[in-house]
Amino acid sequence: MVEAITPMERDFTQWYTDIVKKAELMDYTSVRGCMVIEPYGWAIWENIRNFLDARFKELGHENVSMPLFIPESLLNKEKDHIKGFAPEVAWVTMGGGEKLPERLCVRPTSETLFCEHYARVIHSYRDLPKLYNQWCSVVRWEKTTRPFLRSVEFHWQEGHTMHETAEEAVAETERMLKVYADFCENQLAMPVIKGRKTESEKFAGAEATYTIEAMMYDGKALQAGTSHYFGDGFAKAFDVTFQGRDNSLRHPFQTSWGMSTRIIGGIIMTHGDDDGLVLPPAVAPVQVVVVPVAQHKPGVLEKANEVAARLRKRFRVKLDDSDQTPGWKFAQYEMKGVPLRLEIGPKDIAKDQCVLVRRTDRQKIFTPLGGLEDAVAEQLETVRRQMYGRALERRESMTYEARTLEEMKELADAKPGLVKAMWCGDPACEAKIKEAAGLSSRCIPFEQEHLSDTCACCGRPADQMVYWGKAY
Amino acid sequence: MVEAITPMERDFTQWYTDIVKKAELMDYTSVRGCMVIEPYGWAIWENIRNFLDARFKELGHENVSMPLFIPESLLNKEKDHIKGFAPEVAWVTMGGGEKLPERLCVRPTSETLFCEHYARVIHSYRDLPKLYNQWCSVVRWEKTTRPFLRSVEFHWQEGHTMHETAEEAVAETERMLKVYADFCENQLAMPVIKGRKTESEKFAGAEATYTIEAMMYDGKALQAGTSHYFGDGFAKAFDVTFQGRDNSLRHPFQTSWGMSTRIIGGIIMTHGDDDGLVLPPAVAPVQVVVVPVAQHKPGVLEKANEVAARLRKRFRVKLDDSDQTPGWKFAQYEMKGVPLRLEIGPKDIAKDQCVLVRRTDRQKIFTPLGGLEDAVAEQLETVRRQMYGRALERRESMTYEARTLEEMKELADAKPGLVKAMWCGDPACEAKIKEAAGLSSRCIPFEQEHLSDTCACCGRPADQMVYWGKAY
Repeated sequence: MVEAITPMERDFTQWYTDIVKKAELMDYTSVRGCMVIEPYGWAIWENIRNFLDARFKELGHENVSMPLFIPESLLNKEKDHIKGFAPEVAWVTMGGGEKLPERLCVRPTSETLFCEHYARVIHSYRDLPKLYNQWCSVVRWEKTTRPFLRSVEFHWQEGHTMHETAEEAVAETERMLKVYADFCENQLAMPVIKGRKTESEKFAGAEATYTIEAMMYDGKALQAGTSHYFGDGFAKAFDVTFQGRDNSLRHPFQTSWGMSTRIIGGIIMTHGDDDGLVLPPAVAPVQVVVVPVAQHKPGVLEKANEVAARLRKRFRVKLDDSDQTPGWKFAQYEMKGVPLRLEIGPKDIAKDQCVLVRRTDRQKIFTPLGGLEDAVAEQLETVRRQMYGRALERRESMTYEARTLEEMKELADAKPGLVKAMWCGDPACEAKIKEAAGLSSRCIPFEQEHLSDTCACCGRPADQMVYWGKAY
Repeated sequence: MVEAITPMERDFTQWYTDIVKKAELMDYTSVRGCMVIEPYGWAIWENIRNFLDARFKELGHENVSMPLFIPESLLNKEKDHIKGFAPEVAWVTMGGGEKLPERLCVRPTSETLFCEHYARVIHSYRDLPKLYNQWCSVVRWEKTTRPFLRSVEFHWQEGHTMHETAEEAVAETERMLKVYADFCENQLAMPVIKGRKTESEKFAGAEATYTIEAMMYDGKALQAGTSHYFGDGFAKAFDVTFQGRDNSLRHPFQTSWGMSTRIIGGIIMTHGDDDGLVLPPAVAPVQVVVVPVAQHKPGVLEKANEVAARLRKRFRVKLDDSDQTPGWKFAQYEMKGVPLRLEIGPKDIAKDQCVLVRRTDRQKIFTPLGGLEDAVAEQLETVRRQMYGRALERRESMTYEARTLEEMKELADAKPGLVKAMWCGDPACEAKIKEAAGLSSRCIPFEQEHLSDTCACCGRPADQMVYWGKAY
């Protein structure tokens, strides 16, 4: 038997831990907060990477590779940035058996390295925009860690661009947020709220941080991707200049944006159920698992192989002809979140058909072998739509409105989910809401609603609605 | 004008440095020995990676991701391994503002991490073989560094496999060496010598190291890829066991194999000339550059765009319609090593043709636009064959035979290149040859020649021929 996992409603945290292990996504190591990402987990990340990478390139971005290390003096150049990151970096102090003359931090993010390079290669407005990206891992010395969601080392991509004007840079920041949002909604079937972070929640050194926020099964929010606008603050600190069209010397305007392996945690907690993982077809390492039924009977394995070979031309397919029972295999690939199962046995073969079973609702669809490819494509799209629909419905049913701090506290205590409430913009109110209700500001959404004229916390005039919640 | 580079014959080292900068492959940073790999350089690495990755996967390998850090106690477990690597590692001693209870080294290679994981996931012969690979960067605290050839941080892939029997592991070691050799010869047009390293040159902790050695333009050798057989030494040190077919508890047999960004240095020094880089078509970021001639004349840019769009369906194509002169563009893309140039101007258009020019010999080939795709494919193959042929011819003309240490010394002083000589197998002779002639053993080639019955150094009986040389 495939070993069962802890039910979600009994202990969501343990359910999550069970899934990452039982679905063979990762393994723990002797390095605190660092993990082995196993083949099945890494294949999900490769699919995410391949999709995003192609999208970035279509939009004109070029991949580069920056060093792993940042000298302390370089990290110190932009004051807000170092203030934000200093407490959570790892320092290399010894190399080749000797104490280093200057400490090197293991990059927690690479703005400083990109700026040092940009100062060398940007001279004229003709050199702009610079649209760079890199795929790498970064290190942040987190105290409490959880697989994928918060780890000391994590993988990501970090885009870093420089532009001639502030308008262009802001447009890039917004464009890349939209790329992330479209990816989450269309590929990962994960509904997201697009918005801006408050001053106290923005990235260290940024003028503005945009975010997409997703709601997990337990009602908590997950920041799924961010995009930052820096103005020319780093450019000034790093002396990046260019000759403008009017021959004057100017500073370029900068952005950065990132999505990380944390999104795998988001996929698990958005779509998973008590039988295991449920993977969006676009990133599932195996989209269709072929399970032969009564495989010892003549012709069954041959037919199963023939069908698998046909489907491999369009889909990622696994045929399991091991000597486990079909029941074991069903449970195993449900645990691994394979979106579609194809069963084929002697009776099906006699009728020139097979059975497709969706991971989402287990509905059995008897399908003629002629035109099977199109039927599979259609069912995968149905799975995606079902996943998106359920996640959206759940988010909507778990999003509440509050008009007072008291209401916010009651909701926070009684109902997991997001709370919409008006805010005056004062960081003091934001801090008070966090302290009193345990809710942090998730974002000021682009799609605003006018719930009332006054701040839920202080009662002063308020013209912006904020999403508040508990967050991963 | 495109700025000229130092001629190879005048100063080969400076020529190399000029190329990596002028072809925009890399930039220096303020971190000693670490570089920015710029878009053009990184695109070469991506092409290398995509080809090898597909090959590895075809052969059943799965990608994973191991931590960046290795705790000191874990690195210390295999005695020969730590002895080899301890002098050249970087140590993280501080994290999150506090001194760490145990130092973490930044991985110089990941055998120890893979073994720790294998000990947790290998239980039975049914779990074998484990065929894992990862793409990452590693750090070795080199004293003298050169872009791509020897850097503190470098990118590579490291395959790590575990097998039920020694025979299987040895076969894997040989199989992967052959994958590297085929890749170098067929894709990179780089002839290589396959062989085994001597005891003193093998990898720290390995029972045997296999290598492919290439000869650079200046006659020096470059180790282009290695494959190691570990026996069950690490498995014993890390307590990796499995239940065998006879129910007894056994240790699995291990391999590892790697190819790194150093190969980009090898491409430069194998194929480059005084006009710049010459890139093998298989990994060139731009395979065909389209240069319109008299582009202000009506219809020229339209036609150039049309031709470029047609070719993009099969090749990596760049159309340069900037306002630089055609002469500047010719020099610029020769510097960047683009294998094929396509010129098209009003006279060509009138004749429904274009001009193809090979980077290797600048021959102009007037080519009808009908069937252009096949003509381009054919010319790219010609470029590859020419590159391979020249490199092989050069290697053969610069490979010498020696029968005595005196002859080895004379050759080493007078003629750059490789020296074939018989060796008795005694490390003392190997050390003496290194000291007296400055030649290190490159490999004991699989393809042996019987030059004489005696060791060139000591005169005792010898039954193996070794390639000796100066090396990068």
